[in-house]
Amino acid sequence: MDIKLICTSCGEVYKEETNTFRCTKCDEPLELELVSNAKIKAGNMLEQSVLERYSEFYPFLNNKVDISLGEGFTPLLESRFLSKELGIKGVYFKNESQNPTWSFKDRGTITGVIRAMNLGFKGIGTVSTGNMAASVAAYGSKAKIDTIILVKEEIADEKLKPIAIYGSKLVKVIGDYGKLYLESIRLGYDNGFYFINSDSPFRVEGYKTIAYEIFEQLDYKTPDYVLVPTSAGGDIRGIEKGFRELKACGLTDKVPRFIATQATGCAPIATAFKNGKEEIERFNNPRTIAHAIENPYPPSGNQVLRMLKNNGGMAVDVDDDEILNAQKLMAEEGIFGQPASATSLAALIKLKEENYFSDEDIVVNIVTASGLKFTSALDQHALNTITIDIASLADIIKK
Amino acid sequence: MDIKLICTSCGEVYKEETNTFRCTKCDEPLELELVSNAKIKAGNMLEQSVLERYSEFYPFLNNKVDISLGEGFTPLLESRFLSKELGIKGVYFKNESQNPTWSFKDRGTITGVIRAMNLGFKGIGTVSTGNMAASVAAYGSKAKIDTIILVKEEIADEKLKPIAIYGSKLVKVIGDYGKLYLESIRLGYDNGFYFINSDSPFRVEGYKTIAYEIFEQLDYKTPDYVLVPTSAGGDIRGIEKGFRELKACGLTDKVPRFIATQATGCAPIATAFKNGKEEIERFNNPRTIAHAIENPYPPSGNQVLRMLKNNGGMAVDVDDDEILNAQKLMAEEGIFGQPASATSLAALIKLKEENYFSDEDIVVNIVTASGLKFTSALDQHALNTITIDIASLADIIKK
Repeated sequence: MDIKLICTSCGEVYKEETNTFRCTKCDEPLELELVSNAKIKAGNMLEQSVLERYSEFYPFLNNKVDISLGEGFTPLLESRFLSKELGIKGVYFKNESQNPTWSFKDRGTITGVIRAMNLGFKGIGTVSTGNMAASVAAYGSKAKIDTIILVKEEIADEKLKPIAIYGSKLVKVIGDYGKLYLESIRLGYDNGFYFINSDSPFRVEGYKTIAYEIFEQLDYKTPDYVLVPTSAGGDIRGIEKGFRELKACGLTDKVPRFIATQATGCAPIATAFKNGKEEIERFNNPRTIAHAIENPYPPSGNQVLRMLKNNGGMAVDVDDDEILNAQKLMAEEGIFGQPASATSLAALIKLKEENYFSDEDIVVNIVTASGLKFTSALDQHALNTITIDIASLADIIKK
Repeated sequence: MDIKLICTSCGEVYKEETNTFRCTKCDEPLELELVSNAKIKAGNMLEQSVLERYSEFYPFLNNKVDISLGEGFTPLLESRFLSKELGIKGVYFKNESQNPTWSFKDRGTITGVIRAMNLGFKGIGTVSTGNMAASVAAYGSKAKIDTIILVKEEIADEKLKPIAIYGSKLVKVIGDYGKLYLESIRLGYDNGFYFINSDSPFRVEGYKTIAYEIFEQLDYKTPDYVLVPTSAGGDIRGIEKGFRELKACGLTDKVPRFIATQATGCAPIATAFKNGKEEIERFNNPRTIAHAIENPYPPSGNQVLRMLKNNGGMAVDVDDDEILNAQKLMAEEGIFGQPASATSLAALIKLKEENYFSDEDIVVNIVTASGLKFTSALDQHALNTITIDIASLADIIKK
């Protein structure tokens, strides 16, 4: 199957992955060629997978590998309450917590695993301590392919067990995490293990389906803004590419503006954006409750900056108090996301206060993962209960 | 809106709920009249809710109340691996962990809340310590209606916090849980609070959509067996009614046989079934890892026995070791369910060993909720990890 991987910085073209998944000249991430002649297939979604529905946007995947766990087709929920409160025409939440392993990662894991199997690799792997580890472990088991999950040596058992249950080979690694990210890809690629790390090109492709679904859910319209909690940069890159492809295919004439949201305690992209820099710098002493996006040196950081510049979007950071407030507000709309997921709503509130949005805007927040992923964060919220005797039940109900 | 509620035991007909949701003559559960003239509406599932798609099966709900959180439309996953291992034609999992609050409860909560709002009740409530509490709290917040969640006084904060985050009124009640179940319905009904407890008739109705979806997902065919983890009895009653309605509507000529699965440590229905009894007895000293189905005196227990008799199905119990083994097996297919959810696969394995199934059977296991709901259960599984230095990464990958 012919593919074309293009350097996001210098434009160099490759016919296959390099063994770093990056450009050998400028060391920036590679990206699959834009698809410009695809249509959305009709069909009963109870009888098709998300990759079947959008298969024309994946001409480079051999879909005969059927390892779907039912990823995608997540709800887009309008909050009429928050729309009114914030004075914005439409505030929507794309709830990615309803994926098979309860995060958006599943959409990119399946495209990565299919690529690995198309290439005949003997195994797959990833480097992660959270959502991505569980996702790759689950799909590795479903595909019955050797799966290696590399985690930091100091990871707590509490986080490890919901990954271990899927039955992959779990390896704690002592050493620098950033180095591990790159080394695992190279060593893996040269030895038959395809590492589907955060910004691996075939993982990024999987996130395009979020864009296609939003487009369908808004009745074939494009929102004005999409806010995406951003760590390595893979998710926001994939969603933005999805909308660009919808435009290239003539299905819409507008790409939404993208807002990368980060935690103030680890904001390498937002900081570079604020300072007008073209390259990110390593963020020192990261510390935030939004652990899922606590990446001090995101591998796609520079590309996110380039993308935001072309797109007319921006990057913004929100502190832990703003994150916790937004997490609670979302839950009061029935959506319980992990703290990282709440950075999008927190950023929306902050930017609205700065008059960034107009009253007429349609704004979509990506809720990246379930609040059940990280329940310790709940200790930061007040727990209001009362205790009564069963004989006093009437008083409570009549009050 | 006219409704007809029929006693599941004596057949007495009511035009509205009694204030116990049970028959005033024989104290058995009421059930909405069978729907026999409905069709499944076509439509793009990204643009319709599950209650919109199946609205003809809900003539008694005024659907203008739009409080959907994106419940339903969950995947039905075939495990070719387990089909082969077990020697059964088709082993399927209906993964209800991909609902908005990560359990099947959401399907019944929304129908219950809509009924409450249709009747003009000022509030809603429930009695639960787990999945149902989170679900009712979430929909109560979405609907912006007063919501009371009653829990046992001794509930751990760890379980309470993922309920509290949604912002309902949380009340710990000292006293007998079974009495609380009945008292809350009566006191609530008489004072403007509609309690959507486990086998409330309008909650049971919500579970019918599981049947409609399975039917569509199997290409408009009916499976031979459906295995349902069973506690109060609401879930299995709703799914069975859904299939009976598909038959009554002329959409299929077969209703699958139902198997109620329970934990050996709390098996009032399986015990009564085994002993050929027509009524359940309170199960003494319940104790199982499957807490979500640990109900010693299920309010719909007798009706489940009647239903199973008419249906030709059965009830079976599995012990904690069998449950943990099945939980692990499911995870190795990429599906991580809570222990209660694994009773269906555990029962399938046990019954297959007893030659209960034929090679040609299509069997569906209901996976009721996410494994993230109860991660302490993971302490019962071996955690296999190795620790290496980053310099040894090559050895791991090349091995």
